[in-house]
Amino acid sequence: MLKFEFKNPTKIRFGKGQIENLAKEIPAKSKIMMLYGGGSIKKNGIYEQIKNALKDFEVIEFGGIPANPEYEILMQALEIIKKENINYLLAVGGGSVIDGTKFLSAAALYSGDNPWDILKKNIRIDKGMPFGTVLTLPATGSEMNSGAVITRAETQEKFGMGGPGLFPEFSILDPQVVRSIPQRQLANGITDAYTHVLEQYMTFPTQAFLQDRFAESILQTLVEIAPRILKDPSDYEAASNFMWCCTMALNGLIQKGVPNDWATHMIGHELTALFGIDHARTLSIIGPNLYNYKFEDKKEKLAQYAERVWNIKDGSIDEKAHEAIKKTEDFFHSLGIKTKLSEYTNDYEGTAEIISNRFTERGWLGLGERRNIKPSDVEEIVKMSY
Amino acid sequence: MLKFEFKNPTKIRFGKGQIENLAKEIPAKSKIMMLYGGGSIKKNGIYEQIKNALKDFEVIEFGGIPANPEYEILMQALEIIKKENINYLLAVGGGSVIDGTKFLSAAALYSGDNPWDILKKNIRIDKGMPFGTVLTLPATGSEMNSGAVITRAETQEKFGMGGPGLFPEFSILDPQVVRSIPQRQLANGITDAYTHVLEQYMTFPTQAFLQDRFAESILQTLVEIAPRILKDPSDYEAASNFMWCCTMALNGLIQKGVPNDWATHMIGHELTALFGIDHARTLSIIGPNLYNYKFEDKKEKLAQYAERVWNIKDGSIDEKAHEAIKKTEDFFHSLGIKTKLSEYTNDYEGTAEIISNRFTERGWLGLGERRNIKPSDVEEIVKMSY
Repeated sequence: MLKFEFKNPTKIRFGKGQIENLAKEIPAKSKIMMLYGGGSIKKNGIYEQIKNALKDFEVIEFGGIPANPEYEILMQALEIIKKENINYLLAVGGGSVIDGTKFLSAAALYSGDNPWDILKKNIRIDKGMPFGTVLTLPATGSEMNSGAVITRAETQEKFGMGGPGLFPEFSILDPQVVRSIPQRQLANGITDAYTHVLEQYMTFPTQAFLQDRFAESILQTLVEIAPRILKDPSDYEAASNFMWCCTMALNGLIQKGVPNDWATHMIGHELTALFGIDHARTLSIIGPNLYNYKFEDKKEKLAQYAERVWNIKDGSIDEKAHEAIKKTEDFFHSLGIKTKLSEYTNDYEGTAEIISNRFTERGWLGLGERRNIKPSDVEEIVKMSY
Repeated sequence: MLKFEFKNPTKIRFGKGQIENLAKEIPAKSKIMMLYGGGSIKKNGIYEQIKNALKDFEVIEFGGIPANPEYEILMQALEIIKKENINYLLAVGGGSVIDGTKFLSAAALYSGDNPWDILKKNIRIDKGMPFGTVLTLPATGSEMNSGAVITRAETQEKFGMGGPGLFPEFSILDPQVVRSIPQRQLANGITDAYTHVLEQYMTFPTQAFLQDRFAESILQTLVEIAPRILKDPSDYEAASNFMWCCTMALNGLIQKGVPNDWATHMIGHELTALFGIDHARTLSIIGPNLYNYKFEDKKEKLAQYAERVWNIKDGSIDEKAHEAIKKTEDFFHSLGIKTKLSEYTNDYEGTAEIISNRFTERGWLGLGERRNIKPSDVEEIVKMSY
């Protein structure tokens, strides 16, 4: 087990009707900016529940935060936050709204001249404007971690940011929200959470037996509930497990004491930036090919995953490991997720070189848990994904 | 899955050499009381490491906190805390020292006349004096939760206490401490953590699939590492898993969203109060008998546990459940732990009636996850344990 530090101070309120308790979590007399996305909360009743819970607060709304939250739009919100002396932020949405709110939390208290530096220089944020979340789309785990990914549309780039000051003070997780989520988003959420776990698990063994089993627990549970959720998103028990799995997949717990990969995410982000492919789908395009490409580095864990998650008991380590990659792809397919770049765009020729060049330009010369995935390897992996 | 709230703000520093970082976690110019137990830390080098790390602070020591921390002794420490204007507490030890420190954290800021009321009236503590811990004996999980158990020797009673103000600010977990722990304490630690998990797991199913699997993960890992630890406590990897399992067994995570039992602890506490039997051993005396007595209530989970932790795939639910209880006892025996009260004392006759009467006097009329274990049931369970 590797040396680690772990702290996660976010308070979770989980279960039916928890939105009612929203006002208890926000300091009295706060002036709140409520941030949300495309307006689905106005159709599914969540908007009304929140407005009702916050009736004793002054609330300014900022809707329209898109998937892959854009810097330019967030800067409009920042202007209002400053002009109106907002002192509490409330994200109502999925990972994009929450990530956008984290950027604003950081930018609102940023002492430098240009908030763009937070992203460009990846400045660690030790203190942000306090904020909470009401999760409406389980997937990214942003509701219980301190990281965010922000897009700059004009340059087709995605930037990671974060710091210990960016944990939500609270997050409200009511699994009833799942019933109104479209199938496409449900499949994305399951795929995203599943890949988050793989990024922290499919590395090399370090005798972190407990972390391995926790990771496998999340994978097993996602595999178990996926068909139930897709068949009937109003299945409250399946939705509860789906929601809690997504949170636990990226709240730091399974990440600590083990090597982490994240190369699939870093390559996948480029596919979103270039083609607008849903984040989760980019992970399903890259992940299995990355495992095939780095097979020798990962085969021990792949074989363990084969045994424990997919119940594959027979065969050599290599056979089990190969079978596990196939099972992973099959799982994504079972969710209706396509796993080849050419199934998303006809314009894929040259993508491998573009991404590889970008990584070279940025000086990203060694990705993955062994820091041995060079830009030339990225090129090969993306080509395998065509 | 049941509705729940979860928040755990304790920062963990885990791994080899983390004691060196102690000073980084305590505010500069704090006046510290360092609390410890019988002095084993002076033999195993931990005392020196800590004194070295704290050389820039003013530190007053208070040693001699016994197993099952006693109110009378803690009151002596409280007097010094007040006289010396201590403003930070550091527990260096296992569950007893940490629990004692939690009582002091609460008592130091208590505004009432008599700190005894904190225990007698079980007053919820929202704010305590800040404290951290250096864990030297993995077992109770007190290093990452907000509860404590305090003994009053003169009345042979144990009292629970706690509240959101009693989480340690930080806990340092260096698995190297395990190498100097005597076999008896290692066996106790494994048994204590194992039973903590069972108290939160061996109830009735609520489709909390992820929590079930997390609980099983801890059990599986304890079963896996127990022989390694007992054979060689300086096996760092086994010690790491042992230590992290103990913490995760009682930091709130597997407790949330599921029914909780805790009757084994409540009955076991009385055996410690009456006979001075090690806490963990009282759990091994009571637990398996309680499962036999409440077999119908628990057999579904017992059978799931049989399958997943003990790999018992054949037989009916009842057969698997019975076999699981036997496997649990066998596991305790494999640690050198005796599971009958008569193996600890010759003076056991009448114990069942004494405990049952105490529960009646205290108004504890319904224990367990269904609140259906009455004092008369407690009497039967204790008799089965003779």
